[in-house]
Amino acid sequence: MCESRGAAQMELGSSWNAGSVAAVLPAGGSGERLGAARPKQFCALQGRPLVSHTACALERISWISDIIVVVSLEHIETMKSIIQKYGHKRITVVEGGVTRHRSIFNGLKIFAENKLQKPEVVIIHDAVRPFVEEDILLKVVKAAKDHGAAGAIRPLVSTVIASSADGCLDHSLERARYRASEMPQAFLFDIIYQAYHQCNDYDLDYGTECLHLALKYCKTKAKLIEGSPDLWKVTYKRDLYAAESIIKDNLSQQVCIITDMKEDAVQVGFLLHETLKSHIQQVRRISVSLYKDDNYMQNIILGQCFNFICIRVNKSAFQETQQLVDILENANISTLYPVVLILVHLNVSENTSFSSEMEDLTRIKEFAREVKKKNILVYGLLIHYNKDDPQLQETVNSAATIISALIKDRNPELIGQLLVA
Amino acid sequence: MCESRGAAQMELGSSWNAGSVAAVLPAGGSGERLGAARPKQFCALQGRPLVSHTACALERISWISDIIVVVSLEHIETMKSIIQKYGHKRITVVEGGVTRHRSIFNGLKIFAENKLQKPEVVIIHDAVRPFVEEDILLKVVKAAKDHGAAGAIRPLVSTVIASSADGCLDHSLERARYRASEMPQAFLFDIIYQAYHQCNDYDLDYGTECLHLALKYCKTKAKLIEGSPDLWKVTYKRDLYAAESIIKDNLSQQVCIITDMKEDAVQVGFLLHETLKSHIQQVRRISVSLYKDDNYMQNIILGQCFNFICIRVNKSAFQETQQLVDILENANISTLYPVVLILVHLNVSENTSFSSEMEDLTRIKEFAREVKKKNILVYGLLIHYNKDDPQLQETVNSAATIISALIKDRNPELIGQLLVA
Repeated sequence: MCESRGAAQMELGSSWNAGSVAAVLPAGGSGERLGAARPKQFCALQGRPLVSHTACALERISWISDIIVVVSLEHIETMKSIIQKYGHKRITVVEGGVTRHRSIFNGLKIFAENKLQKPEVVIIHDAVRPFVEEDILLKVVKAAKDHGAAGAIRPLVSTVIASSADGCLDHSLERARYRASEMPQAFLFDIIYQAYHQCNDYDLDYGTECLHLALKYCKTKAKLIEGSPDLWKVTYKRDLYAAESIIKDNLSQQVCIITDMKEDAVQVGFLLHETLKSHIQQVRRISVSLYKDDNYMQNIILGQCFNFICIRVNKSAFQETQQLVDILENANISTLYPVVLILVHLNVSENTSFSSEMEDLTRIKEFAREVKKKNILVYGLLIHYNKDDPQLQETVNSAATIISALIKDRNPELIGQLLVA
Repeated sequence: MCESRGAAQMELGSSWNAGSVAAVLPAGGSGERLGAARPKQFCALQGRPLVSHTACALERISWISDIIVVVSLEHIETMKSIIQKYGHKRITVVEGGVTRHRSIFNGLKIFAENKLQKPEVVIIHDAVRPFVEEDILLKVVKAAKDHGAAGAIRPLVSTVIASSADGCLDHSLERARYRASEMPQAFLFDIIYQAYHQCNDYDLDYGTECLHLALKYCKTKAKLIEGSPDLWKVTYKRDLYAAESIIKDNLSQQVCIITDMKEDAVQVGFLLHETLKSHIQQVRRISVSLYKDDNYMQNIILGQCFNFICIRVNKSAFQETQQLVDILENANISTLYPVVLILVHLNVSENTSFSSEMEDLTRIKEFAREVKKKNILVYGLLIHYNKDDPQLQETVNSAATIISALIKDRNPELIGQLLVA
C-alpha cells in the first residue's frame, strides 16, 4: 500500500545494487514513559498503529529491500495482523529480546543466518519515529558506505548534567560540544553484525547506542549527520498528540472538488476553488464526468489527495456519490488514512418542507455511517444558492471556512451532519 | 484572573513569610527553532499567548510574590498589553539582554536594586514551559532553602554523544549516568545574584545553565529533583501542537448541564448526564433557576468549568441563554479560555416548516457570531424527542458523542451550526 518512490535511486549511482540496503526496526519497547495501556508503537494515529506509519515511511523507498520489524513475543500476532490489514510489503517480523540491543541483534541474525539476503548496508531506525524522510536515510546510507557507520544527530534541547551520589549537581556539560544521537543510523552490515557478535552481556543489557558498539568493537568511528527536527521519537503522550496533529496537517494539504455538469454547481465549484486556495495548499477541480475516467482519478489518488468535495444541485444524488466511494475504495486509498468526503448541496429553492429536509438528513447520516466502515468520513454542507445574490461570495467564504475546518479536524464523531454555510 | 491557590502555604511551614519567594521568567528568546513568524512565547494557544499560560501557572500560586517577565526591548509593549488583556497581577516586565543569562541577570537586578522587595528565594523558570505544577515549584524552593540551589531534572530521551573535529563520533555518554537539566530551578537570592555578579562575559554570552554558575562562583552544589514529563519546553512546532492538545484536554474535563424546568428537558438532562459520564470526567447538572443564584454559578466557574450545555424545549429562548452569557462574561471566565456553550433544542413536534427551521438556524448563527467576540463558542444541537420513543437512549448516545466531540475540538469555525443527534 505504501507506494514506492525511486527518485533517489539515481543518486545512489549505478554501482548500487538492488537488495543491498535493508532496515531493522526495533519495536519491542514497553512504552512505560507514555503511560498508555499499550506500547506506544501500537497506539493509533488517525486510526492506524504508529509502527505502521513508520513502516510506510521506509517501504515508500524503493531502494530498501527488506524491513525487519522486531517485536516482543506477545505482539507478534498483532504485528502480523497489522501487516495484513494495511497491506505492508517487504516486512519480516522477528521476535525481540529483553533489551533494545538484543532485539536489534535478533533482527540482524535473520540476514547472517541467510534467511534473507544479506545486505551491504543495514539501516537501524525506531518504530516510533514515523516522520523519517528519504533524504536523511540516503545520507546515512551513503556515509555508512564511506565510513562503515553513520547516524543522525540533533542539537541538545536541554543542558546535560551529571549528578553526584547524594543527588546533587556534580558538573554540567557545555551544551554546544554535545549532540543528541537520534535515528536513523546505518552500518556496513559486516561491521554492525561483528560488533553485536563480539559485545558482552553488559553491553547488550545496559547499552543504548549502536554507534558506540561499532566504535568499541570494530574501531569504526561513525559519521554524524545533522538531521531535521522531524526525526524526533514518540516518547510521551504529548508526542502522540503532536504526531496526530502533524499527520492531520499533512492530510489536509490537498483537496479535489468534483462538480456535476449543471451550471450552478460549476459556478459554485469555481468560486469555492478560488476561495479554498487561501486555506488549503493544493486545490483541484474536476467535473463529475472526469472522475469516471479511471486514469485521471488514479492520478489524483496517487498524488496523495485524501479530501474530496462533491457539489451537486440534486440533493438525492447518492448514486453518483456511491460511485465515487467505490472508486476510492477500489483504489484502496482509505486503507492508510481516513478520507474526507464533503457533500455540498446547493439549495436553489425555498419551498422545501422541514420533514423532507429531515428525511434527507437521515439519509446522509445513514450513508455516512455505512461509508465510515470503509474509513471514509462523509459530511453534508448546505449552500443556499442564488446566482444573483450579492452575498454569494460571503456564503462561499463561509463554506470554505467550514470545509477547511472539517478537513483539518477529520472528526469521525461529526460524520453525517448537515452543516450550513 | 489566574486565581490564587494557597494549598501549599501550610506545607511551607509557619516560618515562611509571604514575600519571600519571587520568580524570574526569561521570555526573550527568538524562537528560531520553531520556524514561526513570532517567538514561540508569543504564539497563541487557544487564542492566548504561551507566555500568558506560563505566567498563570505561577500566578495561581499564592506564595509567589513577584513575577518578573524578561522580554527583549521590541516585545515590551506586547508583554504589557498581554498583562492588561488577560488581567495578570504581580507581573513586572523587564528588558532583557542579548543572551538568556544576561536576561535573567537583568531580572534579578530589579530586586538587588530594591525596585521590588528582595526575596529570600528566587525561582527561575522558562516562559515556554506552561505546564509547571505547584508540587515541583514547592520542591525546588524547599531544596533551595536547604542547599542554596535546586533544579528539576529529567531522564535523557536520547543518548548524548561528543563528536570529533571531523564530524565523527568521539564518544558516547552512558545514558543512565546523566540527566537533562530542566526548569524550574530555585536559588537563595543572594547566592544566584552573587554568581551572576561574579561571572565573566564568556559565561554570560555562551553559558546556558544557572546551576553551573552557582556551583562555579558560589561553590553551591544544587540539589537535583526528578520532575514530571509535564516540564517539557515548547521548542518546535510539534510542541505547540502538543501544548494545544493538552490544553484542550484539560478544558474538556468538566461540563455543566443546565435544564429548564419543563419535564422533557429535565428527563433529557438526566439521560445526558448519565451518558456523558463515560465521555467526560466531571458532569454536573443544575436547573435553570439555580444558575440565577450567583453563588452557585460562581462555584462552578471557579471550579474551572469551561463547558455548558443548555437544554430547552422552547427553541427561541435566547433571552435565557443571553442571561447565561452575561453571567459567564461577568465572571470573566472566557478571558482566559474559550468557553463552549451548546444549545440543545428538544424538537417535540413534527410539524415545523423548513423555513422556520432555517430562520432559527440563522438566529443561532447570528447569536454565535455575536457571542464569539466574548470568546464563547456557541453550537446548536437538535434532539428529536418523544419520551416513549424506544430509540431515545440511542439518540441520547448520539447527542453525548457529538457534545463530547464539540467540547474536545473547541472549533471556532463550526460555531452557530445546528447539529442533529
